Amino acid sequence: MTNSKDIIVVGGDGFCGWPTALHLSQLGHNVTIVDNMSRRDIDAKMGADSLTPIASIDVRLTAWSEKTGQTITFENIDVARDFDRVVKLMERIKPDTVIHFGEQRAAPYSMRGVGEKRYTVDNNISGTHNLLAASVELGLDPHFVHLGTMGVYGYDDDGIEIPEGYLPVYIPGDDSKIYQREILYPTNPGSVYHMTKSMDQLLFQFYAKNDRLRITDLHQGIVWGTQTDETRLDERLINRFDYDGDYGTVLNRFLMQAVVGHPLTVHGTGGQTRAFIHIQDTVKCIALAVNNPPPQDGKVAILNQMTETHTVRSLAAMVAKTCDAQIANVDNPRNEAAENDLRVSNKTFISLGLKPVTLAEGLMDETFQIAAKYGHRCIYEMIPCVSTWTDNQRPGVVGNTDKAA
Amino acid sequence: MTNSKDIIVVGGDGFCGWPTALHLSQLGHNVTIVDNMSRRDIDAKMGADSLTPIASIDVRLTAWSEKTGQTITFENIDVARDFDRVVKLMERIKPDTVIHFGEQRAAPYSMRGVGEKRYTVDNNISGTHNLLAASVELGLDPHFVHLGTMGVYGYDDDGIEIPEGYLPVYIPGDDSKIYQREILYPTNPGSVYHMTKSMDQLLFQFYAKNDRLRITDLHQGIVWGTQTDETRLDERLINRFDYDGDYGTVLNRFLMQAVVGHPLTVHGTGGQTRAFIHIQDTVKCIALAVNNPPPQDGKVAILNQMTETHTVRSLAAMVAKTCDAQIANVDNPRNEAAENDLRVSNKTFISLGLKPVTLAEGLMDETFQIAAKYGHRCIYEMIPCVSTWTDNQRPGVVGNTDKAA
Ligand SMILES: NC(=O)c1ccc[n+]([C@@H]2O[C@H](COP(=O)([O-])OP(=O)(O)OC[C@H]3O[C@@H](n4cnc5c(N)ncnc54)[C@H](O)[C@@H]3O)[C@@H](O)[C@H]2O)c1
Ligand SMILES: NC(=O)c1ccc[n+]([C@@H]2O[C@H](COP(=O)([O-])OP(=O)(O)OC[C@H]3O[C@@H](n4cnc5c(N)ncnc54)[C@H](O)[C@@H]3O)[C@@H](O)[C@H]2O)c1
Repeated sequence: MTNSKDIIVVGGDGFCGWPTALHLSQLGHNVTIVDNMSRRDIDAKMGADSLTPIASIDVRLTAWSEKTGQTITFENIDVARDFDRVVKLMERIKPDTVIHFGEQRAAPYSMRGVGEKRYTVDNNISGTHNLLAASVELGLDPHFVHLGTMGVYGYDDDGIEIPEGYLPVYIPGDDSKIYQREILYPTNPGSVYHMTKSMDQLLFQFYAKNDRLRITDLHQGIVWGTQTDETRLDERLINRFDYDGDYGTVLNRFLMQAVVGHPLTVHGTGGQTRAFIHIQDTVKCIALAVNNPPPQDGKVAILNQMTETHTVRSLAAMVAKTCDAQIANVDNPRNEAAENDLRVSNKTFISLGLKPVTLAEGLMDETFQIAAKYGHRCIYEMIPCVSTWTDNQRPGVVGNTDKAA
Repeated sequence: MTNSKDIIVVGGDGFCGWPTALHLSQLGHNVTIVDNMSRRDIDAKMGADSLTPIASIDVRLTAWSEKTGQTITFENIDVARDFDRVVKLMERIKPDTVIHFGEQRAAPYSMRGVGEKRYTVDNNISGTHNLLAASVELGLDPHFVHLGTMGVYGYDDDGIEIPEGYLPVYIPGDDSKIYQREILYPTNPGSVYHMTKSMDQLLFQFYAKNDRLRITDLHQGIVWGTQTDETRLDERLINRFDYDGDYGTVLNRFLMQAVVGHPLTVHGTGGQTRAFIHIQDTVKCIALAVNNPPPQDGKVAILNQMTETHTVRSLAAMVAKTCDAQIANVDNPRNEAAENDLRVSNKTFISLGLKPVTLAEGLMDETFQIAAKYGHRCIYEMIPCVSTWTDNQRPGVVGNTDKAA
């Protein structure tokens, strides 16, 4: 393949990173996974586990070579703490692309307690900054692809469509002129996790402007689904499925509740609207982003990586219908508006040719190939969300649902 | 004094923190200084030193008791790294107010190299976050007063007056309605240091919103002058005067150039406009802020703490006239516009009764009481700025000037 790239996938053992690494390897790129296994450690400490039986990274990589003849290299490096090893690795590989998934990514986990708040801030900010600073230090010019979240915008709900990063605004001056500016869409993060993603944006803005780094920041919706074309090739390649109260996103937790015969617990009225994307589309979008680096013009390319929006209420209704389950409304542990609308522009990926997998199409697969098939592995006690946003909020009742990313 | 408060002054050994601690102690507040002496360590490592002979913290505090009968307590704690000691201290003192000066505050130092970039990000972000997270963890409700900088706004120069933090904007919707929002004034930081101050804003926004912390963020101009009413009481209380290429702000470096007979080196055309405030007004503003905590309404109070603006060119002209010096124009080591205008609203402090010391009034004092008096202590080699913003910029010529904060 002529345009094969050297790509570092930071966080490449995780839910989005692993299928992305496989997909890019399949496309002929030369992939190195960097991961410090912190996510598996957190699972172990919480007593949680992926519903699907994920193999160790060694077994995963061996299976991949066996099945495809391709090699993916693995480096166990903490990008937030092992700066010298980050520098050595980048110096050796001189990557064309660095894809950065390596952050603590659950909002409820980031609100558990002071230790988790501090870990999330230190891990996410130092990690992102180290990768940028190392590139500049080495005089390298990799294209950075970072995974951000739609959630940084908060859910202000005044009817404005969320644009791809930049918003043209008009400002009345005190001299009675009207000024026009294009600004970074103002963030209003709702958790420490989302706050770190807003802070990442400022790191990117600065390094793009000052050092002309080429950066694509993908503001992703909630990722659902488990398998991709590549992870389906062998059971040892299976992707993770999180359903615990901290890392499980809303759809997965509904599915698990349905499997164990618990009513689907909807926060408040379930009127919160969220953006979604299937994991198969995530890996496709990232491959598109890798092939389309932005110009070196001092400006971060910000794309919305989502394909549809649903209210939590309508999501519950779809799962209840597919799985023949009940619905129960419980208190919301989050500090947020009860109902919101959400309109998002995703024109860049659509114009690049993305044909999304819809929830209506994919839900059956997810229910029977994953939730029902591996349901016997479910640790029932892990489903409730016990993280609360402030001390005067009670822990949610057993089985309440929360979206994590 | 009936409304005497328990106040922690983080960074209370520094240029702004020390005179603030004295002023608040003089007003009858119960002051604890927290400082890790990192600034004195940086000076020692760079081979720089304050022009004024600053005493050790022990000698400073003893002198203060001798002169006034007041006691200021000192704790050597790194707020970015010693989280447990931060928690213990806050638990013991249960402060009414935490004033946070404890950050790496020089833009050129933050751009020196990768080590300084990483140190600035990690020190400033973890320090600020630790103080906020510790308060929430302990269920305390201190009023936070933080020193930010005018520099976070960048110098966009499209004629808009910089408001106190929030900007009302109009947004044309895709449905052809016009939406109105009040947003955090968009930041456009020009150095890693300024970037950390922009990131601090997001930490404050979140903790004010989620935990209802009361936070005042003071967006300060460049502080000039050395002495205040309290530091003048005894030579052992003298405040620091920085003139080195990294920490010396533009006025101090002009004064030192004049003293050693070097032409005042102006970057480019000297058309950069900056905001200024005298150190005496800084301490007064902080005392006003301490006495006027914002309501617990989820919103950070952002005040512009500056009293006048000048171009670098006009500043050089004033110093040249006072000191009978020459002016030379040299290349600018910064990545910035050559000329800009700057209009800033400082209505809150003026309405609270601040009567500013103007540069025109104070410059003589600064020249003869400080620069000329201690000029023999000047380490000539420290004046040039050797930090550059990007690799393809040459180090500035000997004696070039840069403003640090
Ligand atoms: N899953 C979603 O729904 C979703 C939605 C929007 C955005 N995102 C973003 O996508 C990215 C990946 O999310 P995910 O769902 O795959 O999460 P994940 O937790 O499954 O994967 C993250 C991986 O990064 C690794 N990691 C964390 N810190 C690291 C460090 N300091 N050094 C090296 N490796 C480190 C972890 O061990 C883990 O393998 C995250 O940044 C997340 O914020 C995810
Ligand atoms: N000096 C200016 O012109 C100016 C202008 C605008 C804003 N500010 C802001 O005001 C604040 C104070 O500035 P300054 O000029 O007094 O700087 P300074 O360097 O003289 O003082 C900062 C003090 O904080 C301490 N410190 C740093 N990191 C610490 C940590 N992790 N733990 C404990 N102590 C720590 C240092 O030892 C030092 O004594 C800074 O936040 C700065 O950004 C200053």
